[in-house]
Amino acid sequence: MAALMLAATTIMAQTTKKTFTLNDLLGGGSTYWNLQPKYMFSTWWGEVPVELSVEKAVRIDANGQRQGTLFTTDDLNEVLGEKVVRTCANVQFPYPPAPIVKVQTSREIILIDFERKAVEWRGQIQEGASELVWNPVSRNMAYCIGSNVFVQTADGERRQLTTDGTDDIVYGHSVSRDEFGISNGLFWSPDGKRLAFYKKDQSRIPSYPQVDITQRIAATYVDKYPMAGCETEDVSVAVYDVSSSKTIWLQNPKPMTDYMTNLSWAPDGRKLYVFELNRDQDFMQLYGYDATTGQKDAEPLVEEKHPKYVEPLNTLAFLPWDDTKAVMQTRRDNWNHLYLLDLKKKMYPEWHEANGGGTTCDHVKVTLLTAGDFEVRDFLGFNEKDKTALFVGNVTHPLRATIHSVKVSSRKQALLSADDGVHSAALSASGTQLIDTYSSPTVARKVNLVHTNSGKSVNLLTADDPWKDYDVPEITSGSIKAADGQTDLYYRLIKPTGFDPSKKYPTVVYVYGGPHAHNVQASRGYYFRGWEIYMAQLGYVIFVLDNRGSQYRGLKFEQATFRHLGDEEMKDQLCGVEFLKTLPYVDADRLGVHGWSFGGFMTTNLMCSYPDVFKVGVAGGPVIDWKYYEVMYGERYMDRPEQNPDGYASSSLLPKAKNLKGRLQIILGYNDPTCVPQHTLSFIRASIDAGTQPDLFTYPGDGHNMFGTDQIHLHERITRYFEDYLK
Amino acid sequence: MAALMLAATTIMAQTTKKTFTLNDLLGGGSTYWNLQPKYMFSTWWGEVPVELSVEKAVRIDANGQRQGTLFTTDDLNEVLGEKVVRTCANVQFPYPPAPIVKVQTSREIILIDFERKAVEWRGQIQEGASELVWNPVSRNMAYCIGSNVFVQTADGERRQLTTDGTDDIVYGHSVSRDEFGISNGLFWSPDGKRLAFYKKDQSRIPSYPQVDITQRIAATYVDKYPMAGCETEDVSVAVYDVSSSKTIWLQNPKPMTDYMTNLSWAPDGRKLYVFELNRDQDFMQLYGYDATTGQKDAEPLVEEKHPKYVEPLNTLAFLPWDDTKAVMQTRRDNWNHLYLLDLKKKMYPEWHEANGGGTTCDHVKVTLLTAGDFEVRDFLGFNEKDKTALFVGNVTHPLRATIHSVKVSSRKQALLSADDGVHSAALSASGTQLIDTYSSPTVARKVNLVHTNSGKSVNLLTADDPWKDYDVPEITSGSIKAADGQTDLYYRLIKPTGFDPSKKYPTVVYVYGGPHAHNVQASRGYYFRGWEIYMAQLGYVIFVLDNRGSQYRGLKFEQATFRHLGDEEMKDQLCGVEFLKTLPYVDADRLGVHGWSFGGFMTTNLMCSYPDVFKVGVAGGPVIDWKYYEVMYGERYMDRPEQNPDGYASSSLLPKAKNLKGRLQIILGYNDPTCVPQHTLSFIRASIDAGTQPDLFTYPGDGHNMFGTDQIHLHERITRYFEDYLK
Repeated sequence: MAALMLAATTIMAQTTKKTFTLNDLLGGGSTYWNLQPKYMFSTWWGEVPVELSVEKAVRIDANGQRQGTLFTTDDLNEVLGEKVVRTCANVQFPYPPAPIVKVQTSREIILIDFERKAVEWRGQIQEGASELVWNPVSRNMAYCIGSNVFVQTADGERRQLTTDGTDDIVYGHSVSRDEFGISNGLFWSPDGKRLAFYKKDQSRIPSYPQVDITQRIAATYVDKYPMAGCETEDVSVAVYDVSSSKTIWLQNPKPMTDYMTNLSWAPDGRKLYVFELNRDQDFMQLYGYDATTGQKDAEPLVEEKHPKYVEPLNTLAFLPWDDTKAVMQTRRDNWNHLYLLDLKKKMYPEWHEANGGGTTCDHVKVTLLTAGDFEVRDFLGFNEKDKTALFVGNVTHPLRATIHSVKVSSRKQALLSADDGVHSAALSASGTQLIDTYSSPTVARKVNLVHTNSGKSVNLLTADDPWKDYDVPEITSGSIKAADGQTDLYYRLIKPTGFDPSKKYPTVVYVYGGPHAHNVQASRGYYFRGWEIYMAQLGYVIFVLDNRGSQYRGLKFEQATFRHLGDEEMKDQLCGVEFLKTLPYVDADRLGVHGWSFGGFMTTNLMCSYPDVFKVGVAGGPVIDWKYYEVMYGERYMDRPEQNPDGYASSSLLPKAKNLKGRLQIILGYNDPTCVPQHTLSFIRASIDAGTQPDLFTYPGDGHNMFGTDQIHLHERITRYFEDYLK
Repeated sequence: MAALMLAATTIMAQTTKKTFTLNDLLGGGSTYWNLQPKYMFSTWWGEVPVELSVEKAVRIDANGQRQGTLFTTDDLNEVLGEKVVRTCANVQFPYPPAPIVKVQTSREIILIDFERKAVEWRGQIQEGASELVWNPVSRNMAYCIGSNVFVQTADGERRQLTTDGTDDIVYGHSVSRDEFGISNGLFWSPDGKRLAFYKKDQSRIPSYPQVDITQRIAATYVDKYPMAGCETEDVSVAVYDVSSSKTIWLQNPKPMTDYMTNLSWAPDGRKLYVFELNRDQDFMQLYGYDATTGQKDAEPLVEEKHPKYVEPLNTLAFLPWDDTKAVMQTRRDNWNHLYLLDLKKKMYPEWHEANGGGTTCDHVKVTLLTAGDFEVRDFLGFNEKDKTALFVGNVTHPLRATIHSVKVSSRKQALLSADDGVHSAALSASGTQLIDTYSSPTVARKVNLVHTNSGKSVNLLTADDPWKDYDVPEITSGSIKAADGQTDLYYRLIKPTGFDPSKKYPTVVYVYGGPHAHNVQASRGYYFRGWEIYMAQLGYVIFVLDNRGSQYRGLKFEQATFRHLGDEEMKDQLCGVEFLKTLPYVDADRLGVHGWSFGGFMTTNLMCSYPDVFKVGVAGGPVIDWKYYEVMYGERYMDRPEQNPDGYASSSLLPKAKNLKGRLQIILGYNDPTCVPQHTLSFIRASIDAGTQPDLFTYPGDGHNMFGTDQIHLHERITRYFEDYLK
């Protein structure tokens, strides 16, 4: 399969055409969207696909034909008698086949019967509300004002559920710094009658001293940041019953510093399932709670231990046709797969070794649904008719993400999409159809309507190449062996525009290298970043390699870096450099490296660990010492500092500051709440003390990343640095 | 006189010799002191000059001959029975002609009779004491622990004078951010029986959010910073009577935000004189207070107003032979001069115009002692026998600082030193002799023993040229006309080492440009900075010009910049550039500029205001917008923002960020308490918004300036920037 990828795939190679500006190539650029492949916004009205746009909603038939406008934005405003709806691009159809459309403005949620041309229901949104979640069954709204939780019933009655919310005590918001798949803090039961919500007590966590320089006199603001090994937050979960107006708390005797993740409602709304993880993150238990009393089940459903870590990232998904069974995702067997839990089928609990290197103890019957050496990247839902589960996974090649079904009863898999490219999909209400959006190295973008039993599809959109008038560099992909001599690693290689094989070019390695991300996949241009095209245009070779530790390659691949982040990752990147040296057009005396966040850590580390390999580096928002990184992410991969003093010491870049020989610029958001400035400033201090000379820049007011015009400014800056010192 | 200076004075010009490292040239360098002209530490034992060193104290006779060792460090330790004295370089002789030496360690003040070889007295210093002031008459000590004041009597009794000191309420420390000549907060009466001390209430001033990154989790610390136009501190003065143990407060009905400066004790310790200045700094009154009751005199001694500002900087000095008369310094007549106040001779108070552009109203007789178009730089004291006042001033040339006497009765002046160079002096107890230390463009360093009636002197030290083995660039000085077409401005010009007149060299202008400082004077190498030599060695021309607004040129020269800092200063610097362009060896296409603090403001301003003149700049710890600068200094020159909105707007560099074309690196101490980081960060933000690309560096943990190895690192950095972009 690697060989297949090694065959250079040129997406375009043309001459005497237009050149790109950074504004053309970066998301924050003024002309970026003009040069993107055409997109199609769509949603489902039950089983009917609907194409959405700013102006209107258009019904599509089974043959992919546009069957006329359901309604326009003007139609909706006419019903409302005022111009409050600005776009149809994000409307929803919550009650198919009823002709009801849901529109949401900053002030209201409105249900409109677009056939009767009448307002069905409307609910005002309280001023200052955040975290808003609306349940279509009960039409209750839940939201936060500041750190307190409110519910507004369908008839408009507002109830304040908590009153003691502060900067320290926070209700209804996400917890655990959005790790473990957590992204919000309010969870309606399916019927919208009960609301589960998080409470976090972060009073013991100091506020990192972030400074707002836009005040008349600069002033700090609250940014609670739990650093590895230090005090962290207490998390608990409450359930509010709208009928009784009562709040109960889940009765969890575990330490409140443990993690309570992926809250999953039972279909009947009487139970709440929680993935519970100890602070060490090596022991996970899935427990059910009585949502009316808060009482915890006597025994868990499943348990998982791992000498490195366990990382629950997804909620349970109950089978629509059988409330006693649910799909769970876990990497217990190395690859992220779907497992069927038969909640009524009790098992004698015994600990067994699992293929992922840990042990499991199932208290109910657990069946692997999706076997194979691949990862389920995205669970899509179910085809209720065929009783299949639908998912996107890299089934046929690590770089691809194709759409598949698996029959729950027989575990028989079927490919539903083209067997190339990177796909995403949205299911119809019953799951019998889906809209498949994808690109590949040879496809700029396609959108297909797919029948999930047969896999038959009709094309809804085939985007033209938006760059046909431009001078586009050659982008190829291939694989090399990792430093372990066995593992295949995949790269993207971009040659300079107007490539001349007899020349030697300065070459920049772009790197991320950390978990939960990958930089190379079989999508358009092999997942290129716009800046790479810009650099190719300026005469650079660009090389990007996903080292061990990165995403979608299984647990062992990721865990190779456990307790010593940076080491194996850098060894793999050096294999990439060895490969580059075999290319006659790469000037090995002019190698640069650039990366952000974990990639900033990698860049700084590579510059200091291999000072004779890389001449120039630009590191953005870097981790410098994992002791300054957060509890949740940091302790997963590094344990706590007192548990792993050697790992923290050897992975710290502070003692390496003395090795810097080349030109290294570190850039950070002055208000970075993720890799707080203490990282970079400590490295700068260490460099000064050691007599080395890194460069530095900061974006006041920006966080971990730069957007809009700041993103353009940033990339001008990064580019200039390589132009100054690598050319 | 300018013509005289224009004649190039080469201090050295040699070839094939050693080259300097930054460590050789900068105060923080490891080899710096090896390459400095030999120095001589000395003090007075009454009328006997004593040469001091780490090892011993040596008596010098009237002919300048070393007359044998008074005592060694070992002698003192032998008397003490333990090794506590480490050096004799800073001992004092408080009771001449008694053979008593005072030594001070971190734990004790000790008086030793070095003839009897016995301890005369010793007083323990309380742990944690700061601001320590010891009075030799009473042998009482005053000091602070934190923000409270303590007195320890000669017999060791400790008394806590204040108890409510905090970060907000501070006793016994300097006030008004060390402006107006204030440098401490504890003032013993001459007999040591009364202690005046400051109280400042800074509770209304916000703490600038300074961050200590060396904590486990970065944390802020208190740094009260009053910004121009914002809330400021309340100042009051107390007097503690050691005999009665009572504290009284000076009864001043003026707003407590007014300034109370240059506290001056009457010789009998019964009165305390205070220079009082309103917040607008345009109205000064000198008042006496009864030190036993705190009652303010009904009328002031003198009053001064100025449409721009009045700036009292010095205490009164009472005539040793007449307690009813004192010497005051003021620039009321443009030049800083000595004035004799006859405190008993009442005058009818009338306002008169003065030569400095303001008005004065004297309530006692005031006589100008030192007339002439020059400035008294330093008042030295009195020759009690001859009844003369002694001072250092630029009497015969603006760049010189020579030693003079003036007869109090006749106002007749006499030159006591060589009429060249820059001198400093220390008087004997009676003032009949002084030790004169000086250098000039032709004298590396000389120390003379001078009789202050005749001016006759004997040489105590003539230092060799410490750089005779080194390849030293040519340093010259001269004058040009300011932008007003009239005023002479003085410059220093350094040619590259190994100068070739047929070549064209990159040229760097070093600039400060603000009040209270000058960069060119007739001392060794015309007051060169070590870095300039380093740059000359690398092939740069260095040019330094003291523009209008700088020091020792009179009030009008300084006040040309009032309410629009930067404008006239830059015009003058551009005159310097025009001069440089007349030099055939200056490459006007490769002009750089560098400066720190006010010079950082000037550098950034020049880079943005004259983007086609300067290609490369390095600005250190700059002021960017005067609204972010402090109340005391800032409002003197700019008034308050609401009083001078146009001046603040037009002098701000934020709107100029868009003009930047060349390469500008701004460097600041991350913890700069003087030009707080808000300046630079606001400029960086403005540049990002405008799409310009300044560079940035910061020294975590450092304040407004860098010392020690950080100073070396800094100058490597500054140099590298010019090497990267100007060469």
